[in-house]
Amino acid sequence: MTAAEQLRNEQADFVAGVAGELTGFLTARQSVMSGISPDIEPIMGSISNLVTGGKRLRALMCYWGWRGAGGEAGAGQVVTAGAALELFQAAALIHDDIIDRSDTRRGGPSVHRRFSQLHTSQGWALDSERFGQAAAILAGDLCLSFSEEAFTDIGERAASGSRARLIFNLMRAEVMAGQYLDILEEVAGPVRDRAGAVGRAQSIIRFKSAKYSTEHPLALGGALAGATNDLLRGYSAFALPLGEAFQLRDDVLGVFGDPLTTGKPAGDDLREGKRTVLVALALDQASPEESAFIDASLGSPDLSDADILEIRRIIEDSGALQATEVLISEFGAAAFEALDGLELEDLPKTALRRLAEATVSRAS
Amino acid sequence: MTAAEQLRNEQADFVAGVAGELTGFLTARQSVMSGISPDIEPIMGSISNLVTGGKRLRALMCYWGWRGAGGEAGAGQVVTAGAALELFQAAALIHDDIIDRSDTRRGGPSVHRRFSQLHTSQGWALDSERFGQAAAILAGDLCLSFSEEAFTDIGERAASGSRARLIFNLMRAEVMAGQYLDILEEVAGPVRDRAGAVGRAQSIIRFKSAKYSTEHPLALGGALAGATNDLLRGYSAFALPLGEAFQLRDDVLGVFGDPLTTGKPAGDDLREGKRTVLVALALDQASPEESAFIDASLGSPDLSDADILEIRRIIEDSGALQATEVLISEFGAAAFEALDGLELEDLPKTALRRLAEATVSRAS
Repeated sequence: MTAAEQLRNEQADFVAGVAGELTGFLTARQSVMSGISPDIEPIMGSISNLVTGGKRLRALMCYWGWRGAGGEAGAGQVVTAGAALELFQAAALIHDDIIDRSDTRRGGPSVHRRFSQLHTSQGWALDSERFGQAAAILAGDLCLSFSEEAFTDIGERAASGSRARLIFNLMRAEVMAGQYLDILEEVAGPVRDRAGAVGRAQSIIRFKSAKYSTEHPLALGGALAGATNDLLRGYSAFALPLGEAFQLRDDVLGVFGDPLTTGKPAGDDLREGKRTVLVALALDQASPEESAFIDASLGSPDLSDADILEIRRIIEDSGALQATEVLISEFGAAAFEALDGLELEDLPKTALRRLAEATVSRAS
Repeated sequence: MTAAEQLRNEQADFVAGVAGELTGFLTARQSVMSGISPDIEPIMGSISNLVTGGKRLRALMCYWGWRGAGGEAGAGQVVTAGAALELFQAAALIHDDIIDRSDTRRGGPSVHRRFSQLHTSQGWALDSERFGQAAAILAGDLCLSFSEEAFTDIGERAASGSRARLIFNLMRAEVMAGQYLDILEEVAGPVRDRAGAVGRAQSIIRFKSAKYSTEHPLALGGALAGATNDLLRGYSAFALPLGEAFQLRDDVLGVFGDPLTTGKPAGDDLREGKRTVLVALALDQASPEESAFIDASLGSPDLSDADILEIRRIIEDSGALQATEVLISEFGAAAFEALDGLELEDLPKTALRRLAEATVSRAS
């Protein structure tokens, strides 16, 4: 078996292990829920459906962080940690889609839309949209509780006061804080000083995404395997810029991405009013008229395709797209340089490099 | 010191201990949050504000469950458990108020209203109501995570697989399931078989309220102190009917309560469309015309005061109010009878009786 095959096999085993753990976990909860009422089924179904898909980026970061710190291949603890991270991500997506008014997720309806559709198809009374939101708030709460149950199941290494527990707690608090800063900037951005906008947008992606998507999961895996503080610092130097590149790429895709590949409507971020680094750079560098047009358009759910094309043009002509691509390259380069400097065995190092490459160059 | 004084002092010490624990806990998180951005302050403030008030019913149930099972007075573990329950309750209230469109909580604005008002007062862009909801979803998520952090801080007795952990997990899942059944009945009730409506309403109060407000907290305290299975069964026989009486009283107050005492507008439950046991009994026992009037009115946010008076009249004249009061008495009697049968020391037994009396006869 070549080293590349070994890596592929081990990673596939882990991904299959996480999927099996999630299925077992949710099947056990399903039987408790059926005892309450068969009516709960759509809530459980919406959670199962969400944790079935996705790139498993966070779980994989956790796995290779574990392996890099000397953890045993395929050990149960890291599989459970991966499942907990996937459940947390599902909970975050359910609530995020309500907050961002996103009707689609991975090419299908988002959870609140699923429940609105259920309401309509069943001919229920009152407002289908409100019912969809309310059901999705509860589905997200349940999924958030499940992620915690799974995390506790790791056992002693995730007990109160352990390093892994502290990382998990910090990860949760930071991503929620970052999401709040994100929605705050959508509404407060237009009346705040424009000079600080790029810096605020960079802080938002650090907390709502970079730390959460790459830095904390990698550190979590390392901590579970008993990594030294030196190694954890090295992990951060790699994963934080990687996560920033990841989110900047996401921001570019949110404006310029192909709906067929992203599973999201074109220009979705603009309709949602996201004030990303890309947008903040454009507001800073475009003409006053163009900036005013962007300012007036952001967050308007009925932006036309022509409006979106015009904003895309401004973002390109102002140099903001190019500047963002430069940032992505710089963060990516910093991440790869830090990775090269890490003292890891070949297998986890190669795995992290592959993961990083896929993260920075992705198209969806 | 008389026995009554001893009880009062011990209970006051515990309540003060929980308040102190909550303050310490939130102060520590506040300093992490300030490091991210001072803009997070209103989120932390909304959580602090909510955990400052309230009756502490769940924390007290937990405490006397602990003491009844031989736990030491004022021990740190049960204080931490009380704080975790209060944080969970705050999280549930924040999301519940979004779901129920409740603008007030304990006489002040609910969390989503606070953020809508902040939006308006700051002159921010886009929609203040949407911002309020989004911020409150995130505040509730953060508070839910905090409750889990606090619960884990109890240590080994709340570790994975422990009885206390299983109770806490079940409590969370059941209350979320019960809330979903509650909102489902609001929309599906009008098109479902009327014959089953009272039974469905009784199942909803069991899961969303009775188990959560009294049964599980009492069992949790008992489990932490190492209660026998016999004692836990006895606790359930007392606390489950008590919780059902508690919620039925809440339902009566939601229609007939004095806004000055409840801190909620008169008839709030009717505007929210709650299909409580009280309402289900009225729909079953009123004339077809009166039932149709209630069916058409429930869930309409702009019900007039005259409409509410008319629904009150129907509920009274149909005998539904009287029947509900009988149920409250029966559940209360069953609870007190079970309590009498419990082999407990005088102090916890008297404390639980006082707590039960206050719960069944409360006016707010």
